[in-house]
Amino acid sequence: MLIDTLLKARWIIPVEPDRTVLDNHALAVHGGRIIDILPIPEADAKYQAASVESFDRHALIPGFVNAHTHAAMSLLRGVADDRPLMEWLLDHIWPLEQKWVSETFVRDGTDLAMAEMIRGGVTCFNDMYFFPEVTARQAARYGLRAVVGLILIDFPSAWASGPDDYLSKGLALHDELRHNPLVTAAFAPHAPYSVSDEPLLKIRTLAAELDRPIHMHLHETRDEIDQGRQHYGMRPMKRLQQLDVLGPSFVAVHMTQLTDEEIAQFAESGGSVVHCPESNLKLASGFCPVARLIDAGVNVAIGTDGAASNNDLDVMGEMRAAALLAKAVSNNAAAVPAHTALRMATLNGAKALGLEADIGSLEVGKAADITAIRLDDLETQPLYDPISNVVYAAGRHQVSDVWVAGRRLLKNRELTTLDIEELFQKTAAWREKLTSVQERP
Amino acid sequence: MLIDTLLKARWIIPVEPDRTVLDNHALAVHGGRIIDILPIPEADAKYQAASVESFDRHALIPGFVNAHTHAAMSLLRGVADDRPLMEWLLDHIWPLEQKWVSETFVRDGTDLAMAEMIRGGVTCFNDMYFFPEVTARQAARYGLRAVVGLILIDFPSAWASGPDDYLSKGLALHDELRHNPLVTAAFAPHAPYSVSDEPLLKIRTLAAELDRPIHMHLHETRDEIDQGRQHYGMRPMKRLQQLDVLGPSFVAVHMTQLTDEEIAQFAESGGSVVHCPESNLKLASGFCPVARLIDAGVNVAIGTDGAASNNDLDVMGEMRAAALLAKAVSNNAAAVPAHTALRMATLNGAKALGLEADIGSLEVGKAADITAIRLDDLETQPLYDPISNVVYAAGRHQVSDVWVAGRRLLKNRELTTLDIEELFQKTAAWREKLTSVQERP
Repeated sequence: MLIDTLLKARWIIPVEPDRTVLDNHALAVHGGRIIDILPIPEADAKYQAASVESFDRHALIPGFVNAHTHAAMSLLRGVADDRPLMEWLLDHIWPLEQKWVSETFVRDGTDLAMAEMIRGGVTCFNDMYFFPEVTARQAARYGLRAVVGLILIDFPSAWASGPDDYLSKGLALHDELRHNPLVTAAFAPHAPYSVSDEPLLKIRTLAAELDRPIHMHLHETRDEIDQGRQHYGMRPMKRLQQLDVLGPSFVAVHMTQLTDEEIAQFAESGGSVVHCPESNLKLASGFCPVARLIDAGVNVAIGTDGAASNNDLDVMGEMRAAALLAKAVSNNAAAVPAHTALRMATLNGAKALGLEADIGSLEVGKAADITAIRLDDLETQPLYDPISNVVYAAGRHQVSDVWVAGRRLLKNRELTTLDIEELFQKTAAWREKLTSVQERP
Repeated sequence: MLIDTLLKARWIIPVEPDRTVLDNHALAVHGGRIIDILPIPEADAKYQAASVESFDRHALIPGFVNAHTHAAMSLLRGVADDRPLMEWLLDHIWPLEQKWVSETFVRDGTDLAMAEMIRGGVTCFNDMYFFPEVTARQAARYGLRAVVGLILIDFPSAWASGPDDYLSKGLALHDELRHNPLVTAAFAPHAPYSVSDEPLLKIRTLAAELDRPIHMHLHETRDEIDQGRQHYGMRPMKRLQQLDVLGPSFVAVHMTQLTDEEIAQFAESGGSVVHCPESNLKLASGFCPVARLIDAGVNVAIGTDGAASNNDLDVMGEMRAAALLAKAVSNNAAAVPAHTALRMATLNGAKALGLEADIGSLEVGKAADITAIRLDDLETQPLYDPISNVVYAAGRHQVSDVWVAGRRLLKNRELTTLDIEELFQKTAAWREKLTSVQERP
């Protein structure tokens, strides 16, 4: 049979079925989809491919899903470190954003972020930022899968003048994306402390009508809980319950502050949690009770958050941090074992975004969103278990190749769609601009 | 003036003085020592060097000090993940060690570890393992600075039959190392739960006489505390106090279980703590109160622990983890800022080992133990603050060059003293041997 591509690999880790490692298997890709997974000799006998590639020291895994990003904020990487969330937002990030955020800022920042993510094996990101139509356009242009958040926040920004304006611009973008094969939309009310009831109720209705996820920061810090109590007389999750915003399409980001009752209620709602361990640590927000959420049946995905609070978009690093941290937080060294962490960073992300029929695992019929990781570095020797070495020992620089819907975006470490020299120049220019008003810390 | 080497760099981060970044400066190196640090134009005028090297997109920093390792255990990387400390030790690591640890195991494991550490910018490691004379010999052979622990544990091993035998073998090695310029010895009683009072008292006396550090696991887990209470009627640190083992040369590794009183007492003793954040997370041992220790005036260094419990010897990653984790643990996003984390991973390690007169910072008169880190990757753009990007954004694969006492051990990512192909072969051979009795997890 004649097909587009045959990828032969030393190991394939499909994620579904769980804990599986296929030795010396091949992935047959045609029309952007996985059409077969089989031992290499059988693949050789069965398929004739326009392109045959060997990854004889690599593991092929499903591309990582970065389930929470503010991509454009990559231009603010390291601009304000070592400060708590509200000071960081109010005194540094928001003033800079107010001064600088524009279509070109979002375009250049998103490009920088996408380049970093592709080089780190990410094939899909779930974004929340201003000018989401720019993010959508750039993702589609360079071939990365994305869910762009139709951001809504009570206060005006360079993108929109107020809640109604955010919503109408968001709906226009949603319409535009209806038939886009790579980029879809999610509603993205920013956070309980920055979005009031009325727009939340509108979003609830629209999200149900249009069958879109709701992507929102929730219970990120103790401050947020205290503020919710003061302003609304209840904890923010309770308020969202009362507004009937929770549900299977609800994607709650952070969730570091949770009572047992809230964990049980959230599990019952069927929503997903996006765990951003490094951002939570760096901003001293708290510890998400990942093991307890998983035990309660909640789908927990992984996100990097923006590079301004992390300071990278390294999902492999985030996956490792999630696996390590969950053990200490739950006081159980068996919590979030390697294969669970890998699942969180792939299939659980896909589930959170409602894309699990299409991506998140290497299964016949799914899109060919694939990441190849070299495991032949000294730092990944000896190799007793490829899943362990991918999660606990490998670094993102060992990502060699990345495909989205069968299109190769990274070829032996080289970006195929983005111009890296142009990115360096644009990033340096933004740095010049921003430091013209910002003193060095 | 004629000198050996002039290293010109875009940035030099000397660590001492703290928070300093020197732009476009040069390091003058002669006879293995730093003899000058000055702006590049002045250096060009003042020095003629046998070798002049430009690092125009790099930061030069003091080489990292990995203040707690079990280097040879690199051969056990990933052999048993996702298990609590005592189960991990008793059911997996110790049986494997009993079967396999030998001079050649230690030689090959140490070589693998040193290669990984050099590639990660480490110039000095503080080791604790069996056959320390082999570790010492390999470190000296390949030019890496090391403090080898004269290990002592109550039970017999392939190296020694019991406490007296450990001690006499250790003392012989100490004698042998007296005039070694790179490798020194420390006493290394394994842990409170594995070393009884009598040998500890001997070590106390010998360490004082010979002016050597005492390197010991302490308060790693709650189990250790409980066991100490049961067997000795007191917490392990109290026992060490009563035995008069604590003091300025005492290096306590882990310290995840500490009362306020213990923190104050340890600070008063003048000892150092080695924080191994990723090992503590992975084994669910607990959280070291790093910010409180620093506030109390304790010298806190950073170690990776062995690759069997981490699963890497990546001090840059460990430094980043330490900076992030301390914020969440202390509920203060300003705790352990980037420059403090860098200091912990360099100068504080040197202090813990009693080597701060010689290494740990880039200062005139100190040994030329230097690490060059490329900051021109996309992932470290934009660059607002080199210290932030080194700590929060860079990965160890950006380490390009490493010198110990002026000798270059890594040259543009290539090891100059170790044979990497031989390492791959030997590591693969050990993997074959070990898996012949060990099932895949």
